[in-house]
Amino acid sequence: MNIPEIQPVDSSFGEKAQNRWDHLTKPQGSLGKLEEIVCRLCAIQKSEMPALTKKRLIVFAADHGITQEHVSAYPQEVTKQMVRGFLSERAAICVLARHSNIELVIADAGIAGNFSHPNLLPIHIADGSRNFLKEPAMTAAQCEQAIAEGIGFAEQAKKDGVHLLGGGEMGIGNTTSASAIFASLFTINPDLVTGRGTGLDDRGRLHKVSVIRDALQKWKVDPNQPLEILRYFGGFEIACLSGLYLGCGHHQIPAIVDGFICTAAAAIAIHVAPNVRGYLIFAHHSAEIGFDRVVERLNVHPLLNLNLRLGEGTGAALAMQFIEQALHLFMEMPTFEQAEVSQRIE
Amino acid sequence: MNIPEIQPVDSSFGEKAQNRWDHLTKPQGSLGKLEEIVCRLCAIQKSEMPALTKKRLIVFAADHGITQEHVSAYPQEVTKQMVRGFLSERAAICVLARHSNIELVIADAGIAGNFSHPNLLPIHIADGSRNFLKEPAMTAAQCEQAIAEGIGFAEQAKKDGVHLLGGGEMGIGNTTSASAIFASLFTINPDLVTGRGTGLDDRGRLHKVSVIRDALQKWKVDPNQPLEILRYFGGFEIACLSGLYLGCGHHQIPAIVDGFICTAAAAIAIHVAPNVRGYLIFAHHSAEIGFDRVVERLNVHPLLNLNLRLGEGTGAALAMQFIEQALHLFMEMPTFEQAEVSQRIE
Repeated sequence: MNIPEIQPVDSSFGEKAQNRWDHLTKPQGSLGKLEEIVCRLCAIQKSEMPALTKKRLIVFAADHGITQEHVSAYPQEVTKQMVRGFLSERAAICVLARHSNIELVIADAGIAGNFSHPNLLPIHIADGSRNFLKEPAMTAAQCEQAIAEGIGFAEQAKKDGVHLLGGGEMGIGNTTSASAIFASLFTINPDLVTGRGTGLDDRGRLHKVSVIRDALQKWKVDPNQPLEILRYFGGFEIACLSGLYLGCGHHQIPAIVDGFICTAAAAIAIHVAPNVRGYLIFAHHSAEIGFDRVVERLNVHPLLNLNLRLGEGTGAALAMQFIEQALHLFMEMPTFEQAEVSQRIE
Repeated sequence: MNIPEIQPVDSSFGEKAQNRWDHLTKPQGSLGKLEEIVCRLCAIQKSEMPALTKKRLIVFAADHGITQEHVSAYPQEVTKQMVRGFLSERAAICVLARHSNIELVIADAGIAGNFSHPNLLPIHIADGSRNFLKEPAMTAAQCEQAIAEGIGFAEQAKKDGVHLLGGGEMGIGNTTSASAIFASLFTINPDLVTGRGTGLDDRGRLHKVSVIRDALQKWKVDPNQPLEILRYFGGFEIACLSGLYLGCGHHQIPAIVDGFICTAAAAIAIHVAPNVRGYLIFAHHSAEIGFDRVVERLNVHPLLNLNLRLGEGTGAALAMQFIEQALHLFMEMPTFEQAEVSQRIE
């Protein structure tokens, strides 16, 4: 697998940005996370005045063979039905994108069955990934293709002058994939990183845990082989997202990571190419069980905590709105000198 | 003091709103705090489809005699200088209000010295409150006047058809007032609810604590007399904000409470008229030391946690943007039936 080269972000631009924040008319550090996020943008874009006029969010949808094991509260056909909702511009992510001026792209990474629509980008690697309790979710070729497609989306974004790129996902069964990835990558008891997904009851969740535990024991994938973990337990949308993040690192585009599933894709990317971490902005603290452990292991600090667990990229869209406000403050506030405000008493 | 009557919010409208959320195309409860906030709007506005087109934020500015005790990292004249920044539309709150379509009103609740400007509303109760280590911060008449002015702003908002009202504040020295209010109202050691304000060092903070402790011991105000606590330790902007919140309760307008200082004003309002609590939406978790104790005592759950400690209403403005997105989702997402999406497996 050909992973593109990723340079570290340029922290000298982050320091310059912090220096500007410290001269604006407010107590030093008083804009908290808003200051941090702009420093990150500067470090990523290698600019003292980062741009943010063009925002794009790509939702990758795919089906999961693991749904055969009854791990979801909703039937598999809901993936396709929800994607129809995305295309009719009425789903949650469409509402948020519309009101935040975010260009929304919907891609079929591998939805089961025939489904075409003029606004649906047809990656369609296969009719869903395979049941990972019985065989690896993807072949090596499929997994590589999905990653390459994701990288391609980052490349296209660079060509189109996109300043901020987010990912989202839809795929009934994909919290099971994400939990299996976390348990395998971090060598954690799956019970600790497996939640209710779209709404399992206690019994359903315990069954989901046992399916993941059985699969982990069956395949015994080396925790130091993130791409193998992705191939065995992932899904096409997750692999596309891993590729998207890697591509954003290569092309130096800030990438907004949504919730539980996107973070699984990001975790793979970080383990494949640690430098990508600097390009990833984690949008929100998912309400899914175990997410606190995940962010601790990854040592990342999501921007928002709104108890969301919807996916689709909804947390990423909300975070983009914040980042934009942070940048407005950075660009439009005057310095103490400009505003003729007295400095602190020394 | 004539406190206007406040009816409890109508929880039946909140329940109807939750019922609608539960039928929209997403797992139940998966929009977390965004669902809760819309239910609150419905309960306050007594409507199944709340309105949010007209948003207003009022910043009350005042000076504080307690600055004579060297409790702030900035000199008193910064209050007036920052207000000039508000009026020139370049300060942080102006930037956020402009980009979120929030009408911004700046009021002189009691800035020291002569200061007039065509866009500055002249309440001007006095040239700053008095040094509460030496005498009560306000006379009874001044405190009543400030509360009445705040109530008047809510009444005017009602007449103008404002759907969401926020408060902000500016006043060098006012974290000292707020900390004294919390310590007195909750009978807490002032060391636990006194922070660095605009940026005191350790020594400065300990001095601020000792000033507050001395004042509390000197006046021994009854913790069951919230208006007396406000009069002794508050400031004109804080009293105006308490009045604003009480007025919002009376006129059934959702009120966004900003950070540390606004929460002190809200705490007074809640202790005066407990029903007002239902009308108050706490915007964010201030980074000021002791705020965690304050929200615990008040049993409130702020929407955002961005490590902000700037004031001006900046957290309130950011929260308004969120609340607006939450309402867009509520109004524009289709139900499972409308979208022809399968329900969960029972």
